[in-house]
Amino acid sequence: MTKVAIIMGSDSDWPVMQKAVTTLKSFGVVPTVRVLSAHRTPDEAASFAKAAEGEGYCAIIAAAGMAAHLAGAMAAHSQLPIIGVPMESGGMGGLDALLSTVMMPPGLPVATVAVGGAVNAAVLAVQIGALCDKELAEKLRTYRKEMAEKVLNKDAAIVKAAEEL
Amino acid sequence: MTKVAIIMGSDSDWPVMQKAVTTLKSFGVVPTVRVLSAHRTPDEAASFAKAAEGEGYCAIIAAAGMAAHLAGAMAAHSQLPIIGVPMESGGMGGLDALLSTVMMPPGLPVATVAVGGAVNAAVLAVQIGALCDKELAEKLRTYRKEMAEKVLNKDAAIVKAAEEL
Amino acid sequence: MTKVAIIMGSDSDWPVMQKAVTTLKSFGVVPTVRVLSAHRTPDEAASFAKAAEGEGYCAIIAAAGMAAHLAGAMAAHSQLPIIGVPMESGGMGGLDALLSTVMMPPGLPVATVAVGGAVNAAVLAVQIGALCDKELAEKLRTYRKEMAEKVLNKDAAIVKAAEEL
Amino acid sequence: MTKVAIIMGSDSDWPVMQKAVTTLKSFGVVPTVRVLSAHRTPDEAASFAKAAEGEGYCAIIAAAGMAAHLAGAMAAHSQLPIIGVPMESGGMGGLDALLSTVMMPPGLPVATVAVGGAVNAAVLAVQIGALCDKELAEKLRTYRKEMAEKVLNKDAAIVKAAEEL
Amino acid sequence: MTKVAIIMGSDSDWPVMQKAVTTLKSFGVVPTVRVLSAHRTPDEAASFAKAAEGEGYCAIIAAAGMAAHLAGAMAAHSQLPIIGVPMESGGMGGLDALLSTVMMPPGLPVATVAVGGAVNAAVLAVQIGALCDKELAEKLRTYRKEMAEKVLNKDAAIVKAAEEL
Amino acid sequence: MTKVAIIMGSDSDWPVMQKAVTTLKSFGVVPTVRVLSAHRTPDEAASFAKAAEGEGYCAIIAAAGMAAHLAGAMAAHSQLPIIGVPMESGGMGGLDALLSTVMMPPGLPVATVAVGGAVNAAVLAVQIGALCDKELAEKLRTYRKEMAEKVLNKDAAIVKAAEEL
Amino acid sequence: MTKVAIIMGSDSDWPVMQKAVTTLKSFGVVPTVRVLSAHRTPDEAASFAKAAEGEGYCAIIAAAGMAAHLAGAMAAHSQLPIIGVPMESGGMGGLDALLSTVMMPPGLPVATVAVGGAVNAAVLAVQIGALCDKELAEKLRTYRKEMAEKVLNKDAAIVKAAEEL
Amino acid sequence: MTKVAIIMGSDSDWPVMQKAVTTLKSFGVVPTVRVLSAHRTPDEAASFAKAAEGEGYCAIIAAAGMAAHLAGAMAAHSQLPIIGVPMESGGMGGLDALLSTVMMPPGLPVATVAVGGAVNAAVLAVQIGALCDKELAEKLRTYRKEMAEKVLNKDAAIVKAAEEL
Repeated sequence: MTKVAIIMGSDSDWPVMQKAVTTLKSFGVVPTVRVLSAHRTPDEAASFAKAAEGEGYCAIIAAAGMAAHLAGAMAAHSQLPIIGVPMESGGMGGLDALLSTVMMPPGLPVATVAVGGAVNAAVLAVQIGALCDKELAEKLRTYRKEMAEKVLNKDAAIVKAAEEL
Repeated sequence: MTKVAIIMGSDSDWPVMQKAVTTLKSFGVVPTVRVLSAHRTPDEAASFAKAAEGEGYCAIIAAAGMAAHLAGAMAAHSQLPIIGVPMESGGMGGLDALLSTVMMPPGLPVATVAVGGAVNAAVLAVQIGALCDKELAEKLRTYRKEMAEKVLNKDAAIVKAAEEL
Repeated sequence: MTKVAIIMGSDSDWPVMQKAVTTLKSFGVVPTVRVLSAHRTPDEAASFAKAAEGEGYCAIIAAAGMAAHLAGAMAAHSQLPIIGVPMESGGMGGLDALLSTVMMPPGLPVATVAVGGAVNAAVLAVQIGALCDKELAEKLRTYRKEMAEKVLNKDAAIVKAAEEL
Repeated sequence: MTKVAIIMGSDSDWPVMQKAVTTLKSFGVVPTVRVLSAHRTPDEAASFAKAAEGEGYCAIIAAAGMAAHLAGAMAAHSQLPIIGVPMESGGMGGLDALLSTVMMPPGLPVATVAVGGAVNAAVLAVQIGALCDKELAEKLRTYRKEMAEKVLNKDAAIVKAAEEL
Repeated sequence: MTKVAIIMGSDSDWPVMQKAVTTLKSFGVVPTVRVLSAHRTPDEAASFAKAAEGEGYCAIIAAAGMAAHLAGAMAAHSQLPIIGVPMESGGMGGLDALLSTVMMPPGLPVATVAVGGAVNAAVLAVQIGALCDKELAEKLRTYRKEMAEKVLNKDAAIVKAAEEL
Repeated sequence: MTKVAIIMGSDSDWPVMQKAVTTLKSFGVVPTVRVLSAHRTPDEAASFAKAAEGEGYCAIIAAAGMAAHLAGAMAAHSQLPIIGVPMESGGMGGLDALLSTVMMPPGLPVATVAVGGAVNAAVLAVQIGALCDKELAEKLRTYRKEMAEKVLNKDAAIVKAAEEL
Repeated sequence: MTKVAIIMGSDSDWPVMQKAVTTLKSFGVVPTVRVLSAHRTPDEAASFAKAAEGEGYCAIIAAAGMAAHLAGAMAAHSQLPIIGVPMESGGMGGLDALLSTVMMPPGLPVATVAVGGAVNAAVLAVQIGALCDKELAEKLRTYRKEMAEKVLNKDAAIVKAAEEL
Repeated sequence: MTKVAIIMGSDSDWPVMQKAVTTLKSFGVVPTVRVLSAHRTPDEAASFAKAAEGEGYCAIIAAAGMAAHLAGAMAAHSQLPIIGVPMESGGMGGLDALLSTVMMPPGLPVATVAVGGAVNAAVLAVQIGALCDKELAEKLRTYRKEMAEKVLNKDAAIVKAAEEL
């Protein structure tokens, strides 16, 4: 069974990151969710990362804002794929967190998704997990089909709305 | 055996992306390398993406500059993990390509690495591949150890250089 | 008769893009309005673009936010003038969508207007259509005159308001 | 016959904008090329813009750097489609010229292409001209096919180069 | 007597620019206030600028947002000192208007003040006017003294507030 | 006893900077709080800075927004460590104040903290003061432990919240 | 006679600022040129500013890079018009110096010109000086005419060059 | 005796950071210089930080580029003042490293200096050390005097150069 961890640098990231949890659960993946800070509880964060491969996680999602080091700290201690979610806070639109997350040095990638991209972090984890889990791959196929269908429905609705304008 | 594809939007990306090829080869992964343009040969790009899962790839690395749509185009047609490499071109330091690559809408992630991050794209593909390939996981462990040892050697050299300053 | 299409990447763009519809209608141009996603329904988007020239459209307006690929996807599949409207979403003021829309590679232009520039996209489409449609050209002349007159009226009002300050 | 004007704010833009001239000529369109400054020769610039529609131009390409007002000045005096080319100068990567060109107020669009996008300005003018000129439309079709073929050739070359790496 | 003009590109700039009017009036300078658009009423704007020197203005304050060309248009038609006020509109914090206003080519300066800097535009006009108007120079001296005294008073208040915290 | 000064360029910085005061007080450090403007009361600001070393301060915290010169002005007149707090005001997310504070020329550092980083300015002052004040060093150790404990508590709460989702 | 001062924060600004000197001299204005640092020699800088009005200067041009405080420091100590020239240094294209120079608080304007805008600083000083100096006003008129003529000549040259392309 | 450590994330930072070493040595402070990577040798980096207070360091200077986490990692493991030097690498002018270094969360400050500010990092460390070391304070006083004298000498030289222009 596919195991995914979601780590947040602060519980203020929770309202956004809930969407990662619910997305994963909609695929039948029940994530481990933790608040671990690269700066405030660095040893706990490092311990989690070091143990993660052995515990069978296939990806760690790390969400943090500002000088967002959490994903990088995970990458320092684990060779699992690390998925970074830059969080917006303050007035820079998340650009600080985006650059802090994505601009990693050679050899230590962080798979960065959009600012606030909780859903995409979950989907990326599912895409990775689906490589060795055929059932998950099928669910992903369904998810993408439904996503397309929703657009088709919106398309129909807008065609109508435009006529009535 | 782990299969990875490297797609470039233009052959001008080749000097940088060669490092992704040599990095992958150092892990024993021989990538498929293609020039496919999201804009100039969109049907070929779409065909490649649609077929990729069936052909057994575990990840597609897509490198492009400016309005870098290639990774997104791959994501539109494949549920494999797509790794985006924003390429620097012109005077914006790659910020245009970074935003064009990473800011994907919900449900369609691109696992974005640093601007010009060819090595990191390759390592991320290996990390993903290593989840179902124990040998690759061992090679990754060795790679990371060697990376650390290089830093320790540089540390020793700089300690000396600083004394002699 | 001048035919224009307005494509949106998401129905969340509708409140802004309605202004493009009403602007076009004020010129007697009734646009086709569609929700087509470069990422979620790429084949439908490509089909629309491929058919557009044959169906007599003189321009396609494509509005999208974030990693705004929709206009580029239209440009990949049609040699019609593609008008891109970068949409603001999140905290970057639309800079992400602007760069994703405008920085197209040589040979595949997107005629980009301002962030959220729904009215300007419509007017640009009218300007293009007016090249082969004398009546439309006359309406455009009137539109510009009225626009100038509104400024003159505001000028008079402000002169008065300033005196009373 | 399709008539296009290329206006530059300074002759320092000439090395880049030559590519617009040669691109247009490759389509059999011989452009009028002028140096007209929105700031230094504003009356000449305004006169040119005011007369352009009557002289049968189908588009005006305006290239300028820094506080790039030239395209906007053209738009103020002509209802023809105005194509703006933001030029890079100094250390901001053309961001100053891009924002100065694209962020036009409602009712006065500038069809903005990429920073330094001389070729794209020419192609956009051809796309507009092709709407009423079937021969030009055919040439455009050929141009796009050749562009695709070049990518296919590069693809073949890179496949080989990658194997030999 | 010192004469100053305040030109706005749109009456939406009025709530901010009122502060320029009241600041000038506090110095006994009653400004001419106009709405003149570089794009919508370019001839009126040019006429105003051309006549301004003859009419005895010592400075023109020009406020505009987005692709803020108004100050530049004034500079094109008048050798008076032109004071540019970049206005914030949309999500870029006024950076678009700032760059469009300040990055003028050699020979055609715009004396640019802060984004939304209506008061500073007025004070700069007063500083310029004061060069040939001793009474105004004295008022300026008083203004600066009062400004300093306000800070001293705030200082005293905060010292107290901090103690009570 | 450790003495710290907190200088603000304007009393509008007070709501944010109160947190620096309360943080310092929680360490038993009662700061001197002043409103001194680099521009409006430059002589008072300079006098304060010149006297600060003699009066036994171990650090000066200077908070200012926009073209934030206050910290630099302190650095010009004192060789004490100057801690700069860039304040957000207007739409640039504090980027203007950050660059104005941090980009000091060689020989005149300003120890810059995050935009709006009142707490961090206080903690940095405590860290500096703790170098010669063992009691303060102990309090700092406690502060950091409590900070870690809060994260551990939040971690426990989120683990639970995630399960209940 | 019009008196202008040019102050630089560092002699590294001299190669660029020479153009301000030669521009002023071409108008018969021989400027006082000084290196005065807002941070390294703040008292000398303040003294100069305080004395400038009494010595009959009509404007102070202040050029500085990075956290460019020099113009602001002049404004703090003089009610003369202060013209700020943001200098490019390092990799930010002068954006740091631009924001540090232009974003002045209410009541203390700096008349900011383009990054590296030495010529424009000089011309702005001349425009200000010309308000009370008819001869200078005439020279300015000639300068602007010659500037226009140069553009007309370049226009003629480019028309020819384009034909020969 | 004042003890300072200089940590670099990579030996590629050495050419710039040598200036920190020579600056410290000019004050009689012989720094410990190390290459320790927050990502490649995180345990060594953490060990160094944890031991630093006990070994009597009064500050740790940490230099890193891109997603510059090194200073933050030091701050996570030590309550000493951490001085961060954002290094420029790639095309973003060091903005990525600046934001990654300075935007630290509450309670964990990094005293950030300018991009590439090796000299300022050293001077800040000296300023901190001088608080408990009178001799160092005197040397700092001399350093600042000499810095001022250099400016005065340059001032004299430029006055002459300007006359001869």
